[in-house]
Amino acid sequence: MEISKMTREQMAEEKHRLEKEYEAWKSKGLKLDMSRGKPSKLQLDLSEGLLTAVKDSAEAIDEGTDTRNYGVLDGLPSCRRLFAELLDAPVENVIAGGNASLTMMYDTMLRLWVFGDSVVQRPWSSEGKIKWLCPAPGYDRHFAICEQLGMEMITVPMLDDGPDMDMVERLAGEDAAVKGIWCVPKYSNPEGKVYSDEVIRRFANLKTAAEDFKIFWDNAYVVHHVSGDGAEDILDLFAECKKAGTEDRLFEFASTSKITYPGAGVAAMVCSDRNIAWSKKIMTVQMIGPDKINQLRHVRYFKNAAGVREHMRKHAALMKPKFDLVINKLEQQLGGTGAGSWYVPQGGYFVSFNAMPGCAKRINELCKAAGVKMTDAGATYPYGKDPQDSNLRIAPSMPPLEELADAMEVFCICARLAALEKCMG
Amino acid sequence: MEISKMTREQMAEEKHRLEKEYEAWKSKGLKLDMSRGKPSKLQLDLSEGLLTAVKDSAEAIDEGTDTRNYGVLDGLPSCRRLFAELLDAPVENVIAGGNASLTMMYDTMLRLWVFGDSVVQRPWSSEGKIKWLCPAPGYDRHFAICEQLGMEMITVPMLDDGPDMDMVERLAGEDAAVKGIWCVPKYSNPEGKVYSDEVIRRFANLKTAAEDFKIFWDNAYVVHHVSGDGAEDILDLFAECKKAGTEDRLFEFASTSKITYPGAGVAAMVCSDRNIAWSKKIMTVQMIGPDKINQLRHVRYFKNAAGVREHMRKHAALMKPKFDLVINKLEQQLGGTGAGSWYVPQGGYFVSFNAMPGCAKRINELCKAAGVKMTDAGATYPYGKDPQDSNLRIAPSMPPLEELADAMEVFCICARLAALEKCMG
Repeated sequence: MEISKMTREQMAEEKHRLEKEYEAWKSKGLKLDMSRGKPSKLQLDLSEGLLTAVKDSAEAIDEGTDTRNYGVLDGLPSCRRLFAELLDAPVENVIAGGNASLTMMYDTMLRLWVFGDSVVQRPWSSEGKIKWLCPAPGYDRHFAICEQLGMEMITVPMLDDGPDMDMVERLAGEDAAVKGIWCVPKYSNPEGKVYSDEVIRRFANLKTAAEDFKIFWDNAYVVHHVSGDGAEDILDLFAECKKAGTEDRLFEFASTSKITYPGAGVAAMVCSDRNIAWSKKIMTVQMIGPDKINQLRHVRYFKNAAGVREHMRKHAALMKPKFDLVINKLEQQLGGTGAGSWYVPQGGYFVSFNAMPGCAKRINELCKAAGVKMTDAGATYPYGKDPQDSNLRIAPSMPPLEELADAMEVFCICARLAALEKCMG
Repeated sequence: MEISKMTREQMAEEKHRLEKEYEAWKSKGLKLDMSRGKPSKLQLDLSEGLLTAVKDSAEAIDEGTDTRNYGVLDGLPSCRRLFAELLDAPVENVIAGGNASLTMMYDTMLRLWVFGDSVVQRPWSSEGKIKWLCPAPGYDRHFAICEQLGMEMITVPMLDDGPDMDMVERLAGEDAAVKGIWCVPKYSNPEGKVYSDEVIRRFANLKTAAEDFKIFWDNAYVVHHVSGDGAEDILDLFAECKKAGTEDRLFEFASTSKITYPGAGVAAMVCSDRNIAWSKKIMTVQMIGPDKINQLRHVRYFKNAAGVREHMRKHAALMKPKFDLVINKLEQQLGGTGAGSWYVPQGGYFVSFNAMPGCAKRINELCKAAGVKMTDAGATYPYGKDPQDSNLRIAPSMPPLEELADAMEVFCICARLAALEKCMG
């Protein structure tokens, strides 16, 4: 029954019943974590052979390059080819780097900040207030980069096929202080939404007041399909930008963090010829080259993009029951109650939950007290402030299924309790 | 015979003779490289077992931490302990990072540039002209960082026991725009000189006009002893700074690039409690954590500092004949000619050669034409400009002994030829 339509007596009765359930769970002393998008142990075990993919000196030579020694600033050619195939990009537009696309994004942003972009060449730090578009709910680590640099973040609502492009076009078109936007185009973090072809074409053809407007295209979940007949491939923004002559606005990022190992994967970025030259010119002072042995491990282990896709089907087999469990629990426990709504993702790492407005922090607090750790309420919005206090990110990957089932039971009880408290005033 | 004391006839005769030798070498079509401090294949092979030091899932667990997954911003505790032991630093003052100390230095400099230091907290980018002290001859990649940021580099001469400290004290004491200094305290790059206790104490007790003056202490060759009874240990600047209450001025760096693999080693830095907190606060937005599997490989492979020192004796056994060959060739071919002077290092990676002033570029040019690649003349000075056009860096590690012998023959002929050309006007 919809909570807001209950009589006060019904509410009180339901609340009393749920509080007893909640106390019962609380007394179990759970310690469950649904806070971060960490792969589970079983997922990590899938890449076992990676550790021994380069075992000796002879195996460390790749196409004549001794991967143990210095050099190769933009990454091992064979590793760049692997990412080129995965990202459908020309290999000359791919840089293969270290263990984290987050670091590549941060470093790229700092290069823009300190040195200016490849076209306008005016440091963003010298321009007074800079603004950045943040589709939300979104990824807290993206927002943290803008916040550290003192950029003004502007929230853009996420629609079902991507950010509200009318708003993006208006803000980017009118205000030269708006310098860019974060995007997770495939299985967005946290909602798992997929950008439509139309949205992607509008990005390629965006009229921007700033000549040095940048799209940070975080293709974190490019091969992280889980279930359904969802987007195996989205439209390629780099190709669309080239058609439109706007490729200098794009930096695309990806990594194997959630393919092999989060701490010891390989990251890559894709950008225009001009931006490759610009990146390398600045990078060459920061580093001599990435860990090429680890890049080679990945090449030897996967061989090609088909090898990666095959591997991702094993991840999907582990992730699907968890996604299904989360969605089923939400439907069973909260369906028709009005305590919240959710989007059913076909890939990625999260389920996004929109609680009854004003309830997210309370749900988080209740979960925490019962030993269920969630991502902080608000984290999915710029400055950690969700204006509706509604969105919560559920990260089902890490806990085993049985623990996840318990955690979701607790979560649903907390969501209903918070909604009841809210309705009872 | 000393070239400058020859008659013109003697000079002409000697030059004619050397030109014939030079042409004979040139006709051999050599392709020899003494340009960079790259370990040789045999040195890389010493670390063979590192590649399989972590072979499977069970081995990837270290003290309860799954090194394959996300997290541990400041590095694996066991790896931090290894560096703490090597650098004689408290483990809580050690951060273990990625594959390059150069990147740690660059990133630290950029943090100072963009955000300001932990004490004054005023971004260096906001202060107009910043100046930086550069003991020279020095390391070109250090200078490149300053140059990229538009700092004014001030050359400080290297004496036999470290930089000219009278000059350092005067410049740092008088000018608040002087924000710091590069140092390679043990087996300096390129000269292989070792800082004396007195020099190190003067650094700890330096009176600086800038409150946010920083010492970038690149301890790149901390265990890279090669021969002689030279400095196995130098005075610990961090401890001296703590005595003087100046520890916030110090950032110390080291790595295993020239212990295990240049492309796939582990870097570390040492700094004060306040600077650790400052670094982590900024770093946490740039990265989630370093490659902990690779850190664990190093811990498992070496076990402790004694393991590293034992390993370095094997490197020394390979490096010593090369250093000896270079010094012997210089003494045999150039001794008493006045064509140049050199310092005999007891460790590190280079031999520094001071040609007759005005000859370094010419020697480089002659070498190149004969197929012997050297580090660019001038590279050891800020802006790549050696005011004397004298210093050349010889990097003997990479070529096999026979090739090195050929390269040194050519080098010595070129040095004498250049000196003759110079004296003949």
